[in-house]
Amino acid sequence: MDEKRKRILIIGGVAAGPKAAARARRCDPGAEITIVEEGSFLSYAGCGMPFYIGGMVEKHEELMATPVGVVRDAAFFRNVKDINVLTGTRAEAIDRENKTVRVTNLATRETCDLPYDKLVLATGSKPVRPPIPGMDLAGVYTLGNLEEARAVRQAVEQGARRVVIIGGGLIGLELADVLGTKAEITIVEMMDHVLSTLLDPELSILVERVLRGKGVQLILGSRVERIEGDGNGAVVRVVTTAGSFDADLVVVAAGVRPRVELAREAGLELGETGAIKVNEYLQTSDPDIYAGGDCVENIHLISGRPVYTPMGSVANRHGRVIGDNVAGGRDTFPGVLGTAILKVFEMNIGRTGLSESEARRLGYHVESFICPAPDRAHFYPGSKPIIIKLVADASTRKLLGAQILGPGDVNKRLDVMVAALSMGATVDQLATFDLAYAPPFSTALDPLTHAANCLRNKLDGRARSINPLEVKKRLEAGEDFVLLDVRTPAEFNEVRLPYPNVVFIPLGKLRERAKELPKDREIIVFCKVSLRGWEAQTILESLGFTNVSFFEGGIAAWPFELDTSPRQS
Amino acid sequence: MDEKRKRILIIGGVAAGPKAAARARRCDPGAEITIVEEGSFLSYAGCGMPFYIGGMVEKHEELMATPVGVVRDAAFFRNVKDINVLTGTRAEAIDRENKTVRVTNLATRETCDLPYDKLVLATGSKPVRPPIPGMDLAGVYTLGNLEEARAVRQAVEQGARRVVIIGGGLIGLELADVLGTKAEITIVEMMDHVLSTLLDPELSILVERVLRGKGVQLILGSRVERIEGDGNGAVVRVVTTAGSFDADLVVVAAGVRPRVELAREAGLELGETGAIKVNEYLQTSDPDIYAGGDCVENIHLISGRPVYTPMGSVANRHGRVIGDNVAGGRDTFPGVLGTAILKVFEMNIGRTGLSESEARRLGYHVESFICPAPDRAHFYPGSKPIIIKLVADASTRKLLGAQILGPGDVNKRLDVMVAALSMGATVDQLATFDLAYAPPFSTALDPLTHAANCLRNKLDGRARSINPLEVKKRLEAGEDFVLLDVRTPAEFNEVRLPYPNVVFIPLGKLRERAKELPKDREIIVFCKVSLRGWEAQTILESLGFTNVSFFEGGIAAWPFELDTSPRQS
Repeated sequence: MDEKRKRILIIGGVAAGPKAAARARRCDPGAEITIVEEGSFLSYAGCGMPFYIGGMVEKHEELMATPVGVVRDAAFFRNVKDINVLTGTRAEAIDRENKTVRVTNLATRETCDLPYDKLVLATGSKPVRPPIPGMDLAGVYTLGNLEEARAVRQAVEQGARRVVIIGGGLIGLELADVLGTKAEITIVEMMDHVLSTLLDPELSILVERVLRGKGVQLILGSRVERIEGDGNGAVVRVVTTAGSFDADLVVVAAGVRPRVELAREAGLELGETGAIKVNEYLQTSDPDIYAGGDCVENIHLISGRPVYTPMGSVANRHGRVIGDNVAGGRDTFPGVLGTAILKVFEMNIGRTGLSESEARRLGYHVESFICPAPDRAHFYPGSKPIIIKLVADASTRKLLGAQILGPGDVNKRLDVMVAALSMGATVDQLATFDLAYAPPFSTALDPLTHAANCLRNKLDGRARSINPLEVKKRLEAGEDFVLLDVRTPAEFNEVRLPYPNVVFIPLGKLRERAKELPKDREIIVFCKVSLRGWEAQTILESLGFTNVSFFEGGIAAWPFELDTSPRQS
Repeated sequence: MDEKRKRILIIGGVAAGPKAAARARRCDPGAEITIVEEGSFLSYAGCGMPFYIGGMVEKHEELMATPVGVVRDAAFFRNVKDINVLTGTRAEAIDRENKTVRVTNLATRETCDLPYDKLVLATGSKPVRPPIPGMDLAGVYTLGNLEEARAVRQAVEQGARRVVIIGGGLIGLELADVLGTKAEITIVEMMDHVLSTLLDPELSILVERVLRGKGVQLILGSRVERIEGDGNGAVVRVVTTAGSFDADLVVVAAGVRPRVELAREAGLELGETGAIKVNEYLQTSDPDIYAGGDCVENIHLISGRPVYTPMGSVANRHGRVIGDNVAGGRDTFPGVLGTAILKVFEMNIGRTGLSESEARRLGYHVESFICPAPDRAHFYPGSKPIIIKLVADASTRKLLGAQILGPGDVNKRLDVMVAALSMGATVDQLATFDLAYAPPFSTALDPLTHAANCLRNKLDGRARSINPLEVKKRLEAGEDFVLLDVRTPAEFNEVRLPYPNVVFIPLGKLRERAKELPKDREIIVFCKVSLRGWEAQTILESLGFTNVSFFEGGIAAWPFELDTSPRQS
């Protein structure tokens, strides 16, 4: 062996590992680069698993191929990248003093010590296995790897009809989406709402409405007590605190945990999230050992605090930084925003930065606004609504986060918010962005510009608006106020809020009919999206009303009951 | 009249004017607000005209309605917003000393002087009418207003088959798109390429390929000499420096000019672009007169120079700032990025900031990169390609601009670039953005991240890449070099560069077969997108080759001839 070649050893061959290897090769053509992978698959798109299960991706090989169809197997890494790959090989222990890793070939049980100059830990994550009886029954899966994904797909293809998904997070909902037309889905979620770590409750409720509308049974705020099987060890039932649910198939999507055994046993520092702690160069507490991907924690760019946000995109970006640095570079990884996006039936759902609940927990002086808008010119065919919730720091006016959902183009606005948050933009700066406009793509004032302007109006004390949850709370508390609906008669006939204190006066008539309204009672206005709601607030104030507000999001984002019964005008 | 009410007078009722009026009303419930509009339509979406002409928007009223279908006519402004509107009324002259505007009712010819405390000029733009004979023939239109749009649509519906569009800019191409299935289209463009003010030439050529593929006849680098009519004054022919073209209908889409007569005659300062000069508060040289929309020039946020970029989106943002300020606020409009987006058949085309040609003209030390990529996970159904060209300042690494096109999701990446440019991001910062990833929406490394990383590799001297135009130039000059194609045999059989100096060695075989390549000749590598091209460059350099580069964009963005004839492997 050439003594002068730098030896780069990489543990883990799924995302961050191969990316680090490829980058290191490009930066250091002379290095000796080895990837050790426990499984038999390399460099596959784990995030594609739900779509493979749903059949949108026909063969699992597609998840492992390059865009031109070349499968990234060991021969590919060898021939194209001059990288050694040992699959079916487990890393057992790191000897930091001698700079070697003990590995075992899982087929032959042979072990040997691989030397390194720079070591990369890309050991990934493993699904949480809740400590409940019945986890080992046949028909219970956790989607830890492609083999399990294959088994789930096969089970559905072979007739499993009743599917219970344990966990109403991102993966659980993606599964409900891809299996929704093929099976009867029940989701059991411990928290009171789906996507509770991603969205504020009033938006989660809108997602729940879509799920229920598609026939998905939601069992919220309930824990699974046990999974029961038949006499042959096959699953038949999931027993929860809210009742029992028959199941031909159970998928546990209760999140993942970092795989840190190797790091912990080697004495590397772990962070407060339980994942490996790394600095901005992605170095562990041992400067010759780097770590990236699902096994490390990241710094949240808004809060500055460590977070555990396992994502394929982050793993890929980690890989490049590590590849640079093990080859002698000094690239940095500044952190994450906790960006996430998913599709649930016809609804696209995205979030980045901090939710309002998170921001409040962290002690920010928060202001937020919920703003529905068409995703492109309303007169252009195919225009669809989206709902944007912006969260900002009321003291500095800096943006803290965004949640966006709806059937329309959520994706674009989400990534604009990622860019804005990455650069520390204020809500005022967001409002000035010269965003693209043509009718097939957007509205003259993009929904984001519009949302930013609404939040500015609120921050400036011009718009007095409240969250729909607040309205609901006051309704339930029996508080005395007028709910003033200022939509058109046609809109009113189509759908209404079903509360006795609703008064209906179309905006165009408000100036002349305002005298019908009581000046001594609180008035909360709304319309379809609450833009006219704000207009009504300003009109009533100009007429001497002193206790007027509007609720955000209007009918379009109202998360509770609506009356859609036929009605004469 | 109440002496204490502030009188806000607004000239122009299409975009910036009504927006300023509505905002002023919200900020100052007591003001007396009047809009004077020469035409009969108010507050309509001028950018929607091509889609109305094409029939995607059925009725022109849809362009004037709010998203819930309320038409914004004078009664709407009166009843809802307490704003006076005088349509069919022309502003003739401004008396700055007495603070009045002389207006004429076009129906009655009555004139009067309207007083103001704050005046807003939103006089818009008018289409350029080239000084060529025949402009007044029946069947020749300039799309200056909705009436003309209606006439063009009617002409096509009544059988006009041969349509000549004069001008290959944004509006000309949108028209070709919407009329392409209904008529035979010829576009006559003075410059050598379509969209020449928006895109660099190698990208314009890709757009031209799409247009020609759809049967559009392109007459580039040619001027119209005259338009000829029949004996009855109806158009029959367009005569250009490149020949004559029969025409049932001619649409002149040669750009617009600001309407500044009123401002000029009042002695207000005009800028170097010929549009009204305003400061960051959108005040003209008279502090009581504001101006916005298509009649003013803007500051380009990257170059800092005045530009004339008439856009409905900009006009709307102007309107809000002006409305704030005439009501006593101090809001600012920082400037524009020259963002534009359009759809041409199946191709989406966007640009923001400076093109490479513009940046070079302005004296920047420019580096750029052209990067094709799938818009979402290549294994997800419906994934489509896009091509990103990033332009950066090589000295500061700050991003200067982006051009993005292709059938995939251009729109999202364009607006992310708008956000990045607005905030002064470097290419290194762009690469760190925590962009959203899930297979239905993006790739694990978003195309923008990937493009940013490629440009970083080039700036860092790792990737030696050249523009396809440069390759073409060297081919035409007969220079001696090897064009090394490193794609797979299947890709090679499908499509090839038709040049004798092409050598084909798949990347997987390059390490073993590199000895077949001459070490003393220049080698320019490519693949489908030139990612493998770069990989090949690093492999060859590690094997001792010293004169290797790759060309950007690969086959996917090659703007010249391709050989797609059947071929055996």
